[in-house]
Amino acid sequence: MPKTEHWQWYAEEFAPTERHEHAVEELLAAGRSQFQQYAVLRTPVFGKMLVLDGDTQSSQGDERIYHESLVHPAMAAADALSEVLILGGGEGATLREALRHPGVARCTMVDIDGEVVELCKRHLPEWGAGAWDDPRARVIIGDALRFLREDHDRYDVIISDLTEPLPDSPSWPLFNGAVFRDIKARLSEGGVYVLQASTAAFHNMALHVKMARTLRNYFTYVRSYFAYVPAFDTAWAFLACSDAVDVQALSGERIARHVAELRGENFYYDEETHRRLFALPLYLRRALAEKGEVFS
Amino acid sequence: MPKTEHWQWYAEEFAPTERHEHAVEELLAAGRSQFQQYAVLRTPVFGKMLVLDGDTQSSQGDERIYHESLVHPAMAAADALSEVLILGGGEGATLREALRHPGVARCTMVDIDGEVVELCKRHLPEWGAGAWDDPRARVIIGDALRFLREDHDRYDVIISDLTEPLPDSPSWPLFNGAVFRDIKARLSEGGVYVLQASTAAFHNMALHVKMARTLRNYFTYVRSYFAYVPAFDTAWAFLACSDAVDVQALSGERIARHVAELRGENFYYDEETHRRLFALPLYLRRALAEKGEVFS
Amino acid sequence: MPKTEHWQWYAEEFAPTERHEHAVEELLAAGRSQFQQYAVLRTPVFGKMLVLDGDTQSSQGDERIYHESLVHPAMAAADALSEVLILGGGEGATLREALRHPGVARCTMVDIDGEVVELCKRHLPEWGAGAWDDPRARVIIGDALRFLREDHDRYDVIISDLTEPLPDSPSWPLFNGAVFRDIKARLSEGGVYVLQASTAAFHNMALHVKMARTLRNYFTYVRSYFAYVPAFDTAWAFLACSDAVDVQALSGERIARHVAELRGENFYYDEETHRRLFALPLYLRRALAEKGEVFS
Amino acid sequence: MPKTEHWQWYAEEFAPTERHEHAVEELLAAGRSQFQQYAVLRTPVFGKMLVLDGDTQSSQGDERIYHESLVHPAMAAADALSEVLILGGGEGATLREALRHPGVARCTMVDIDGEVVELCKRHLPEWGAGAWDDPRARVIIGDALRFLREDHDRYDVIISDLTEPLPDSPSWPLFNGAVFRDIKARLSEGGVYVLQASTAAFHNMALHVKMARTLRNYFTYVRSYFAYVPAFDTAWAFLACSDAVDVQALSGERIARHVAELRGENFYYDEETHRRLFALPLYLRRALAEKGEVFS
Repeated sequence: MPKTEHWQWYAEEFAPTERHEHAVEELLAAGRSQFQQYAVLRTPVFGKMLVLDGDTQSSQGDERIYHESLVHPAMAAADALSEVLILGGGEGATLREALRHPGVARCTMVDIDGEVVELCKRHLPEWGAGAWDDPRARVIIGDALRFLREDHDRYDVIISDLTEPLPDSPSWPLFNGAVFRDIKARLSEGGVYVLQASTAAFHNMALHVKMARTLRNYFTYVRSYFAYVPAFDTAWAFLACSDAVDVQALSGERIARHVAELRGENFYYDEETHRRLFALPLYLRRALAEKGEVFS
Repeated sequence: MPKTEHWQWYAEEFAPTERHEHAVEELLAAGRSQFQQYAVLRTPVFGKMLVLDGDTQSSQGDERIYHESLVHPAMAAADALSEVLILGGGEGATLREALRHPGVARCTMVDIDGEVVELCKRHLPEWGAGAWDDPRARVIIGDALRFLREDHDRYDVIISDLTEPLPDSPSWPLFNGAVFRDIKARLSEGGVYVLQASTAAFHNMALHVKMARTLRNYFTYVRSYFAYVPAFDTAWAFLACSDAVDVQALSGERIARHVAELRGENFYYDEETHRRLFALPLYLRRALAEKGEVFS
Repeated sequence: MPKTEHWQWYAEEFAPTERHEHAVEELLAAGRSQFQQYAVLRTPVFGKMLVLDGDTQSSQGDERIYHESLVHPAMAAADALSEVLILGGGEGATLREALRHPGVARCTMVDIDGEVVELCKRHLPEWGAGAWDDPRARVIIGDALRFLREDHDRYDVIISDLTEPLPDSPSWPLFNGAVFRDIKARLSEGGVYVLQASTAAFHNMALHVKMARTLRNYFTYVRSYFAYVPAFDTAWAFLACSDAVDVQALSGERIARHVAELRGENFYYDEETHRRLFALPLYLRRALAEKGEVFS
Repeated sequence: MPKTEHWQWYAEEFAPTERHEHAVEELLAAGRSQFQQYAVLRTPVFGKMLVLDGDTQSSQGDERIYHESLVHPAMAAADALSEVLILGGGEGATLREALRHPGVARCTMVDIDGEVVELCKRHLPEWGAGAWDDPRARVIIGDALRFLREDHDRYDVIISDLTEPLPDSPSWPLFNGAVFRDIKARLSEGGVYVLQASTAAFHNMALHVKMARTLRNYFTYVRSYFAYVPAFDTAWAFLACSDAVDVQALSGERIARHVAELRGENFYYDEETHRRLFALPLYLRRALAEKGEVFS
């Protein structure tokens, strides 16, 4: 039999009728933790990738698009930055982005899957880039829901980097009114809550729209935004929520100042990128304006 | 053998190590014209799709993202709209978008592949949506290069909807200084030339950057912009070129007026979408600012 | 996007975890008849292929392996050849093989799907190879079950070329005691009944074994045999049943005489191939000897 | 994104237009030795599989079909069994099969890739099944070509379990007249040389035919035989060569006695299976009878 140059493939399906296959150069790790199936692999186009339960979580090639978009709009907008809370975020890149700002006194990260956290420390050191050893980092392996209920601190920025609230996922119990009330109780006055919030392409925006609709019942300002992330093969959406600040309307000066204060250089985010992120296409604005179901 | 529900697949590769497979519900037509291999097929997620030489040209689900982005920024910006010229554009959707504006007195379209034009009229009537029968439409089956050389009219908007200038493609002879000079010669004072201009994701922006760099030698204003088009699986880029108008800086009023004058409703483009299209991510602006090769 | 040389694929799954993809050069026909989904396509390795409900039925490259194996052992063994009955067999190749013998006075074929029969006449003329026009051919478009019940003729050879008796298939009602009694009633003394009988590889022989076990309750001699058919990607099995003749034990002289009497040359079957077909591997003989479920 | 149950696939191509994809449950090992790329993976249908340079070498589900076919016809036929030599055979299953016969006094195995040998000992212990620790086993990590030249012993059975002699493969220098003369020099009178010898399906038998044609210039009896091995997705061929014995014509008594003397039970091979293996289909006998190229 003639030799096949690429014999190992990672297939992601965003529908049963759509398969995206990536040739795998090397599988660095694969297994099952207490909570999920995991793999770290390397592809020629995207570099190293983290896959959980068959879904791409991030790739070396473009993780900065996702993580800068998740972290910096909220941090640029919040009244203060001293205390940051991350729910999930096991790869360490959300922690890294938060700690790039010298104004952060403490960044608390609560992730339920210690085995995946260790996996990322070992195989994806570029994601954490030293953040794990920053004395301002407080990493708690535990249930974010319970932490929110039992903790009594206040946070200037709360970043939710959890998987999507699908009925059978571990994130399902983390997306309902009780939890939003807990989050509001932990948010400082002038604080911002931001979450990754599913996809926003024309054919897969229903869950995002439902998430946005739900959160509008809890926060004064709820802003959708999204970035095209090639490794996710789609437009990835976020929601920035606050009772005090409209993240969409942030001034260019404020964004520029925030970016200037960060240690190191950005790859994706700055004032102009902020305009792109929050300027939504007509079809998405129409969908967001429709009435419909909410999470209870 | 158990029955396979989806047995027919269309695979597109954007690299030898990346395959995107779409299950095909129905293959409506397939064959080879004098110039290229063609297929019209239907998939559950994207609806009907036109495929030329193995590349997705447009899908029923999101062709309006591509065609509204290609046509309307230039038309909103041009000093006049009376004469529009389309190079390529065989599907008929670019013609449709141009003719939606009542100010267009004549829209000339020059496409080399009459067989593909007939294919689209028959199988993709939603793309043309009546434009083929509009008395203002002048459809010429012929070589765009020769047309540019032999024609003596002037056009307010010139829209290039050709395939990419890869060395072995029929579009290769259409991307060089001689052609740009021909296009300038055909452009009215205050006119705008816009072209589809390859991809702008982090891993595939080199050709776009080279195209932009080249055109800056011929036009005063050369503006990159891009939209995420799901059926293309990537960020699709355009270049808006003019000696008179900076399309990026268009006022909201002007865009709103243009959109209001169009027959029917837009799906994608309006003032806010325009801001999104032209607000480029940091990594792309950096790449566009670098010196490098140009097309001769 | 770079051009993909092979963009159209036919995927057959023999398990949800096993996909065999064939690049399709041309899709000659595809649609849905009253009874099943059909396609005729061409691949570089196998030539034209007929696909019904997502399953390969036969390929130009190796259909003679399947059809010679189905038809000739039974015909070589039967006491007479004058009347042959084919149940199913829509491609026409089973009819062709039967009519290659000058001793056949009439070959009756009963297939339920007239649309697929016409499809094969048009797109797969190499399969029928003139048999459709042979005056000895009697082609009946109708229900084989009903034909067996209502017909009163006797046949020297009855060949069942139906799809597998899976619970949801049109062949399910054709595989039970009542039908076997009908078939016996139609079989001449000294006649042979042969059927295609699922697969015989180590991982997919259970259905074949159950079919064999069932038929042993109705016939004195029930012989399993199989051929590797590349287009089916597996070992394809048959059962030769008779109360008079042991097809497995056929003498070399008899086989040689039968083959010599055929019009034209064989590709696959002769005396030595007969030995191969009926010499079963140890694991299969062991499975056939086990007790277990039967079709009721 | 919805979860994909099977996200990891192993794709084997037997032509650029044919892909067979197996879902991978677990990748037990993957890497590159000094000589080749290797992987051990587990699939739902085939169990564990060894893959070298993207080609399936054997699977837990059916490796006994391959290894019993490779080893026992030659061993049943040889005049003596005391000294057996295996060229290649890194998985250890060829060694296991040889050592199942108590008449083997010493079995020498020469494989160039010690890293793959260790891999198989660790991850595929079912293949060796204790043979590695048998005191009669002499395992030499080294170049088979050099061993043949420098060794001075004689062997009753020589088994070549090397990869195919493709121009760019490490087996290429092992398939020429000089090597065959070396092998003959090492073969006892009454000895048999057997080799795995590429594929024998209608569309991929050319290499096998050329190998057979070549060996007929060196040995009195050169017999082709083949087994369908599902994990290889094709008919796998062998050549049994001897100046003294015609392996094809072996008596049933002799085969039965050999099998009875083996420790443990066979899965595939016995007298009837031997008849199957050596009874070749007409198309293959025709091809073997044609004149044509030989290896020099």
